[in-house]
Amino acid sequence: MTESFSTLRVNADRMHDSFIHLASIGATGDGGVSRVTFSEEHLAARTWFRTEIENAGLEFHMDSAGNHSAVLACDDKNAPTLLLGSHLDSVPNGGRFDGALGVVAAIEVLRTVKENGISLKTKLEAIDFTDEEGTLVGLLGSAALVGRLHPEALKNPRGGRQNLVEGMRRAGLPEEAIFEAARPKNSLAGYLELHIEQGKRLERAGINIGIVSAIVGYGSYHMSFIGRADHAGSTTMEDRLDAGQGAGAFILAVRELVMQEFPSCVANVGKVKFSPGASNIVPACADLFLEFRSPDETQLSGLDVALMELAGRKAEQFGLKLLVEPLGKHKPNLMSANIQQAFQKSCNILGLSSMGLASGAIHDAQSLVNVCLVGMIFVPSVDGASHAPREYTKWEDCVNGANVLLQTVLQLAT
Amino acid sequence: MTESFSTLRVNADRMHDSFIHLASIGATGDGGVSRVTFSEEHLAARTWFRTEIENAGLEFHMDSAGNHSAVLACDDKNAPTLLLGSHLDSVPNGGRFDGALGVVAAIEVLRTVKENGISLKTKLEAIDFTDEEGTLVGLLGSAALVGRLHPEALKNPRGGRQNLVEGMRRAGLPEEAIFEAARPKNSLAGYLELHIEQGKRLERAGINIGIVSAIVGYGSYHMSFIGRADHAGSTTMEDRLDAGQGAGAFILAVRELVMQEFPSCVANVGKVKFSPGASNIVPACADLFLEFRSPDETQLSGLDVALMELAGRKAEQFGLKLLVEPLGKHKPNLMSANIQQAFQKSCNILGLSSMGLASGAIHDAQSLVNVCLVGMIFVPSVDGASHAPREYTKWEDCVNGANVLLQTVLQLAT
Repeated sequence: MTESFSTLRVNADRMHDSFIHLASIGATGDGGVSRVTFSEEHLAARTWFRTEIENAGLEFHMDSAGNHSAVLACDDKNAPTLLLGSHLDSVPNGGRFDGALGVVAAIEVLRTVKENGISLKTKLEAIDFTDEEGTLVGLLGSAALVGRLHPEALKNPRGGRQNLVEGMRRAGLPEEAIFEAARPKNSLAGYLELHIEQGKRLERAGINIGIVSAIVGYGSYHMSFIGRADHAGSTTMEDRLDAGQGAGAFILAVRELVMQEFPSCVANVGKVKFSPGASNIVPACADLFLEFRSPDETQLSGLDVALMELAGRKAEQFGLKLLVEPLGKHKPNLMSANIQQAFQKSCNILGLSSMGLASGAIHDAQSLVNVCLVGMIFVPSVDGASHAPREYTKWEDCVNGANVLLQTVLQLAT
Repeated sequence: MTESFSTLRVNADRMHDSFIHLASIGATGDGGVSRVTFSEEHLAARTWFRTEIENAGLEFHMDSAGNHSAVLACDDKNAPTLLLGSHLDSVPNGGRFDGALGVVAAIEVLRTVKENGISLKTKLEAIDFTDEEGTLVGLLGSAALVGRLHPEALKNPRGGRQNLVEGMRRAGLPEEAIFEAARPKNSLAGYLELHIEQGKRLERAGINIGIVSAIVGYGSYHMSFIGRADHAGSTTMEDRLDAGQGAGAFILAVRELVMQEFPSCVANVGKVKFSPGASNIVPACADLFLEFRSPDETQLSGLDVALMELAGRKAEQFGLKLLVEPLGKHKPNLMSANIQQAFQKSCNILGLSSMGLASGAIHDAQSLVNVCLVGMIFVPSVDGASHAPREYTKWEDCVNGANVLLQTVLQLAT
């Protein structure tokens, strides 16, 4: 890397224009966006990205998994690709920064490299991965790109088979072709992702950049506590098999278990449904959706076992049956030490403070771990908010992140 | 009452034909029926009832609240009416007996009186009350009939305003006319209702007939525990304001409170919703629907206060806000002592065992309490099941109930 590159910066105003335009697509009016995978809003954001790529004089590329990319070629046609990116889909009623910042920063890095006529030894590609948030499958685009999408994930997607089929039809993607998105081995030189932290650690520590050491592993389950529907007026409390009691007790106990015995982990029950669901009928069934995460594989396995035992005990306590359906499982993924060092050097060049941390959130980066060197940085989330309209990162932090990305690309690819 | 009437019995086979035909309307294939108010199935059941009335040579009458009746006139045109009845609507996926038995028995009593040419001193009317179960409003038809339907109940119905408007349109009932269903004062001589117990007391005691002493009062609330949506992977357990914790703790504590401090009462949380409702987002809001009941007014008020305090404490424990919306409240209603004695005498005539008990379920009978003498009897529910497809009462018990109804009509109206 020649010394002159170290003074190069992204065009913060141009990046801001892109970010603001993108944030208007699927805007919910309360500062947030709703762009769930293959919704009309999500498809509009993808169209916007394609136009942005073409306006920048970059090559547009779409693969059969719907991943959209800007490509900046290099002199060596056989050179591998250094991939930068994130995702344009959001959770329902999510924030403007999650995913979007990483895509906007990635294309801005490509524009900056291109307009400065810098010759790289790798191709550079800014990618929007399909369905990172998992409205349908989760990490769908990145898993397909590395050839690790499991056919079962399409047969029984977490978002429901019907929604997947209709979504792919809206996006014009034939399902059978999705596996053709797999890239040839050794075609990728690395993957870098800028993302908001979605937690409070950077803000609390007053640090500019978080250099991710590992992405948590996770497990998720659909659990059904099954009792019996009875008339809620004429059935004594003693005579009930109230599925809601099992669910309530489990929800409370999950938090206690994690806080007391698995302090490096987190767990969440984010969705619950009582059936038949009338105020005058004792719940016959309580369905709940559990997720838990840890950056440590041993802790993750231990928590998994402890949660299953806990659910069984709570069902038994209230005379209920328990059905457990595993929805997904993923080991923790370590980020490349080399790339962590390169991020560190970029922070030094830019005069930014940094710290290492684990990502509690799941990211496309983990799909790439077994295929190429992978690195990820975080910028501070105000009040740690994310997956919500009040999600916010100061614009100077967004620009800092993009400049770390740029400087790291220049280190790795020149 | 002349001695000869005491040998009179309903036509059990004819009543069985009626019951089986009715049970086929809205049948769910698992032994249950789904005939929620003004659904196509419910409207079909009402049409069946009208045909049944006309086939029996009885007068058909429908009022502006949609109550359907069979009327058997008497010599004195100014005589008051002795009303018998129940309801044809059901809870979603409910049972065949709840409400339906009372309507079928009522018309069978009229047919028996008519074909035996018995001269009564009152008109006799078998009525199907609109919306007893409260899919839309709850006790809609009976409240309108006694002139106690509150306009607010139509403006903000528990089943949702839109559902009420659409339902009334399907049933051909103009909303503004509904209050015209109110009957003149002193036009009713009494109201008798046969119903299944929906509990286990009669079955456990091996008793044929339950003579209802009181119908429980109740209260119901929509409660919202409000926390904050956060990313469930990147937000530490300590940093969360998890609305689900408040809901879970409350659901558990309600049961404990009732069992330990209010043993004559019951309470139920039958419906819960977490928002935004994704497994990877900490619940920002947990909405739940609470109902509680007691045959004793003092106990009911005490429980009401204790439940509100409990919800407040649980919200506070987890740093949550609490919103409470009252959905309804009703004092316990005592049944007529005279009619209880008449039921007792009928049981003696028929050689049936009986016991007094409170009704834990709400019934149209309570709407009539302040207008005329009201009495209600129960027949045993197998395993106490109700509001569920496995709801079942032995046919001989159903016939016993109808015969008690007939004998009591003969006592009161001859």
